[in-house]
Amino acid sequence: MKKFMDDSFLLQTKTAEQLYSAVKDLPIIDWHCHLDPREIAEDKQFESLTELWLAADHYKWRVMRAYGVEEEYITGGADDFEKFGKWAGVIENCIGNPLYHWTHLELRRVFGCDIPLSSKTAAKVWKHCSKVLEKGLKVSDVFKMFNVEMLCTSDNPADSLEFHELVKNSGLKTAVKPTFRPTDLLSIENPGWTGYINTLSELTGVEISDYESLKEAVFCRADFFAAHGCTIADHALDPPVYHSEDDKILDIIIRKALDEEALTYEEICGFKTEMQVDLVKKYNELGWTMQLHMGTARGVNTTMTALLGTDCGYDCIAGSDYSTALLRFLDRLEVTASLPRTILFNLNPKDNDLIAAIAGSFSGHEEKGKVQPGAAWWFNDHKDGMEAQLRALANNGILGTFAGMLTDSRSFLSYTRHEYFRRILCNLIGSWVENGEYPADFDKLEEIVKNICYYNAKEYFI
Amino acid sequence: MKKFMDDSFLLQTKTAEQLYSAVKDLPIIDWHCHLDPREIAEDKQFESLTELWLAADHYKWRVMRAYGVEEEYITGGADDFEKFGKWAGVIENCIGNPLYHWTHLELRRVFGCDIPLSSKTAAKVWKHCSKVLEKGLKVSDVFKMFNVEMLCTSDNPADSLEFHELVKNSGLKTAVKPTFRPTDLLSIENPGWTGYINTLSELTGVEISDYESLKEAVFCRADFFAAHGCTIADHALDPPVYHSEDDKILDIIIRKALDEEALTYEEICGFKTEMQVDLVKKYNELGWTMQLHMGTARGVNTTMTALLGTDCGYDCIAGSDYSTALLRFLDRLEVTASLPRTILFNLNPKDNDLIAAIAGSFSGHEEKGKVQPGAAWWFNDHKDGMEAQLRALANNGILGTFAGMLTDSRSFLSYTRHEYFRRILCNLIGSWVENGEYPADFDKLEEIVKNICYYNAKEYFI
Amino acid sequence: MKKFMDDSFLLQTKTAEQLYSAVKDLPIIDWHCHLDPREIAEDKQFESLTELWLAADHYKWRVMRAYGVEEEYITGGADDFEKFGKWAGVIENCIGNPLYHWTHLELRRVFGCDIPLSSKTAAKVWKHCSKVLEKGLKVSDVFKMFNVEMLCTSDNPADSLEFHELVKNSGLKTAVKPTFRPTDLLSIENPGWTGYINTLSELTGVEISDYESLKEAVFCRADFFAAHGCTIADHALDPPVYHSEDDKILDIIIRKALDEEALTYEEICGFKTEMQVDLVKKYNELGWTMQLHMGTARGVNTTMTALLGTDCGYDCIAGSDYSTALLRFLDRLEVTASLPRTILFNLNPKDNDLIAAIAGSFSGHEEKGKVQPGAAWWFNDHKDGMEAQLRALANNGILGTFAGMLTDSRSFLSYTRHEYFRRILCNLIGSWVENGEYPADFDKLEEIVKNICYYNAKEYFI
Repeated sequence: MKKFMDDSFLLQTKTAEQLYSAVKDLPIIDWHCHLDPREIAEDKQFESLTELWLAADHYKWRVMRAYGVEEEYITGGADDFEKFGKWAGVIENCIGNPLYHWTHLELRRVFGCDIPLSSKTAAKVWKHCSKVLEKGLKVSDVFKMFNVEMLCTSDNPADSLEFHELVKNSGLKTAVKPTFRPTDLLSIENPGWTGYINTLSELTGVEISDYESLKEAVFCRADFFAAHGCTIADHALDPPVYHSEDDKILDIIIRKALDEEALTYEEICGFKTEMQVDLVKKYNELGWTMQLHMGTARGVNTTMTALLGTDCGYDCIAGSDYSTALLRFLDRLEVTASLPRTILFNLNPKDNDLIAAIAGSFSGHEEKGKVQPGAAWWFNDHKDGMEAQLRALANNGILGTFAGMLTDSRSFLSYTRHEYFRRILCNLIGSWVENGEYPADFDKLEEIVKNICYYNAKEYFI
Repeated sequence: MKKFMDDSFLLQTKTAEQLYSAVKDLPIIDWHCHLDPREIAEDKQFESLTELWLAADHYKWRVMRAYGVEEEYITGGADDFEKFGKWAGVIENCIGNPLYHWTHLELRRVFGCDIPLSSKTAAKVWKHCSKVLEKGLKVSDVFKMFNVEMLCTSDNPADSLEFHELVKNSGLKTAVKPTFRPTDLLSIENPGWTGYINTLSELTGVEISDYESLKEAVFCRADFFAAHGCTIADHALDPPVYHSEDDKILDIIIRKALDEEALTYEEICGFKTEMQVDLVKKYNELGWTMQLHMGTARGVNTTMTALLGTDCGYDCIAGSDYSTALLRFLDRLEVTASLPRTILFNLNPKDNDLIAAIAGSFSGHEEKGKVQPGAAWWFNDHKDGMEAQLRALANNGILGTFAGMLTDSRSFLSYTRHEYFRRILCNLIGSWVENGEYPADFDKLEEIVKNICYYNAKEYFI
Repeated sequence: MKKFMDDSFLLQTKTAEQLYSAVKDLPIIDWHCHLDPREIAEDKQFESLTELWLAADHYKWRVMRAYGVEEEYITGGADDFEKFGKWAGVIENCIGNPLYHWTHLELRRVFGCDIPLSSKTAAKVWKHCSKVLEKGLKVSDVFKMFNVEMLCTSDNPADSLEFHELVKNSGLKTAVKPTFRPTDLLSIENPGWTGYINTLSELTGVEISDYESLKEAVFCRADFFAAHGCTIADHALDPPVYHSEDDKILDIIIRKALDEEALTYEEICGFKTEMQVDLVKKYNELGWTMQLHMGTARGVNTTMTALLGTDCGYDCIAGSDYSTALLRFLDRLEVTASLPRTILFNLNPKDNDLIAAIAGSFSGHEEKGKVQPGAAWWFNDHKDGMEAQLRALANNGILGTFAGMLTDSRSFLSYTRHEYFRRILCNLIGSWVENGEYPADFDKLEEIVKNICYYNAKEYFI
């Protein structure tokens, strides 16, 4: 029996261990996360484990609710230590859940604490970590600890990027880049859309009255983001519909939306489709990469979403098919010679092979891994999910060009997930080598795992 | 090499063996099965292996047909020993099929017979088991042998529950509870619906002429079931459509159905949706649990279904998406504060993660595992299927609160499937512990497996 | 650590090795491939590795594009050795991809070359293989080398089958049979359809003016194929729609198509549905087997398909559901007592269990494995894909009646894929036996693996 989470955690063979030793100290490029640029700029100091773990992490909130914990101890006003105690009582029952591993990796790597967390040990762990926090733990300490070379936040096109500017001038060694995420722009069906368009208009000086002027304003923001180091845009195929529409009709749709008239489903889809196509053409001109996320159902619990807001743990996997829409979208871009580098993310793991096969039909253009599947994401960000995604990619494409891991996280401690990924990757490849499925050519093998863990992303995104 | 089906069957590590020893003798709570209450009340004595195995088991019929056995030897009039001989010739080719394991577990546990069944050994096995049967094997013997503490049958709301009453007063140690399964009520499109409504009317004394009076009659039956110990209702999302409808329209639909006028698809779906919502509200008031089954295609072979009737082996997995309908259904219940404890069953294993993620968006209300995925069901009731379901649940939720195994079976010998499940569960958790993914804290580990195998169900359903 | 691709390649236990030794020398029946009958008839001699590997293999083209290789070196006019060099630089990064294994199996088995291929070794491997080719390597040598007893090509109903005749009379020991693949006939929406119908008319002497005369002509070709040894037809459910249509309407549809009027989607589906039903009835009369392929999206990259044509690496897996259409199609055939032996192929691996469960609902008729799932196909033709398909079949049906492997390949060297399959099969079954899940009865086990690797196909297709 292996000891719980020792040095060879998740490394089941000597080959896996050797491969992991080649990547464990590589810098981290976290090319998609939801960290708050303001907290980075201010080099926030963390006060408690509860703040670090439970203040914003809807992954943890979900399992606390599933265990029957009162909302008071989750998002409510209960005392920090009480909340932590509740969490301790939940996590010990989460056997097999990645939160169990993340929690203990964070305790070990950040706090040097190797006590398994449970109701019984909660007070002891709290005390141990509080001592560390009392000495001061800041954002910059965490980045240093995990050797974070670059990270990309998720930002609204209307964002001033002032905090990114502050970070840039702060001397922080970690490069912090914005990502262009035009969800609000595309959400023409939302009540706040007109207000959002007004904001864009003010920011850009463009009077927005039709599709052309709207594009002008938005492209202006894309240029602004590019000037601030942005190289990635973040989209979702939501709803999973491709509905091409005429420019004249788009003008009418925009007019109606600005006049706050109700739009038909067809109009909404027509606008989203065409605006996404035009945005992506712009990204291609700017040399950006498009991230495309698929298979989500968001805010499915109306009551709780109304109470707590979005991103509070009431999203889930969608089951419906999006592949027809995705194929038409990618083909439209290819036909117009405007397909940028693209990473395809599927939330429903049943689609791992589908996505890998689709990516393979739009690769080419003399670029390595131009269109490729993204790492196991959100509900798939665990050992089984990562292995399934790596296998689907390897079986249907080229694992050696994979752009690798990202955290997608709101938590500063989540950099341990890169370690988690690296271990799982090295273990999988190690098992192939041990089983005689690839030669034991360690020069080549180390090159492959180093590329996946660091160099591919560096080449792809910088 | 491990010996065939020895004590450590499916237990690949010492940890797995230790965990299994902690649960092997726990009582069984079989909270969903299709046993016949009359046979339980009469404490039926079994005459032959053929009766036990082949009289009602469409799982076995399917593979016999797939092997080319004549229907005469399956559901036809052939001699018992001849039928058994055909089965013996089929099962030896079913390598990897759960029927192979169930068959041999039943031979071992019930008959003390460890001969592998094949054409060659058929006569020997028959002779061995016949000797046991000659000594007398009754329903109550089987329950005692497997330590069945409670079981829940599947019952029509129009059922008199007289056999449940008889069982209750019989001194049988196993509690036998009815389950409320209103399939006939919901099947408004069926020719027999009007007759069924008349029966409900007679049973309840309620004159059924509109939606309100129909509800009154049905709720009356639910109260009757509750008074007879029922705590569970059994539903299916079939067709996988959510179509909300107005009460006035529902009155018209019911009027049309009672007048035996043809209904539109929309009307059928409208009735099913609203009646299910109102039933579930009633269950919530009664403190019941809802089982919701999804992803089935029933009676797909028209010819054979016409010949042999329903539940004869001509059902299969459905491929279409039901998640949109399911989400709307659950959200409607949540918005109206009437979501009961709910177990979600998916027949298509591609949906394991989907279902686990959906469950996680409706958990809460200070109840442990309030909405949770059900055990690997029907076509998934095998080692791979169970492991996949356990992993999906563990990855996306809390394995520690899982309500565990049920047989869903028409066969009295199928209690070995609880052993099968317990071995698979302990093996999976054991492999995690051996691999350093969870601490070797056997107090906690044994608590977890005991909860899953017995105590969670006891708390959930009793 | 096992040595790279040694004798026990993919065989992880002694039992697996023993089982493999029982099947390794069995002849090959390759009941579905895309080899060119002309090249077989001419006993083509191969000139270079590039010709053998890169001239027609869109599997390899896809990964070369994904690695950023210029099209010039893929389908373009670059020099053979340069193309080979590019391939060498790609394949070493394809860790985990079946192409890595196929490439090295082919080097070992055909060329006796055990050098792992990479940029560094490209020249050495080229030199080694060129020496072998200089001595002469012909189609018949390859067939002999791999002990190919029979193969079935894919042929257009309008084909003269002259090359099949030539092969038959050539003394080649391998039986080469045609397969009836009426894709052009069913593609009523294609511009070339009228011309195709004219060809059929000329070949058969039937004046085609309505549905009846079209059927007459087509059935005439089926009889012609039957007379040339054909026993298999090859269909796809594409689009995945079942739309029954009236004979009179079919006449109108055909009239419109012959007059080159545009057809509605409904008309297209009506024609395809009814023509497939009638074709399959004919196959049933002829005692043929139907192969039915599902879940493909073809030519999804319009630009590249326009440039290079079909079957050039721009197809992929489809995500939409076809099960409703498939069930109606099979049921229609069953109701009319005209369901032939049928092999169901799914391209999306999420459907492995679905397909196995569907097959089980249409089995019977006193025939072994009458309706059964086909081997892991195309994007699933790898270790993970094969294991998943074998497990789904074993869990839901009878592995022992499985008709086994086919190459589906355009490459003469792809017979190593039968070895690949046999190793994976024996390893899986070996793992069950070693784990005590099936008795170590080697007579029975060897019978099972021999049946799957050879005898079942022999009985099924000859």
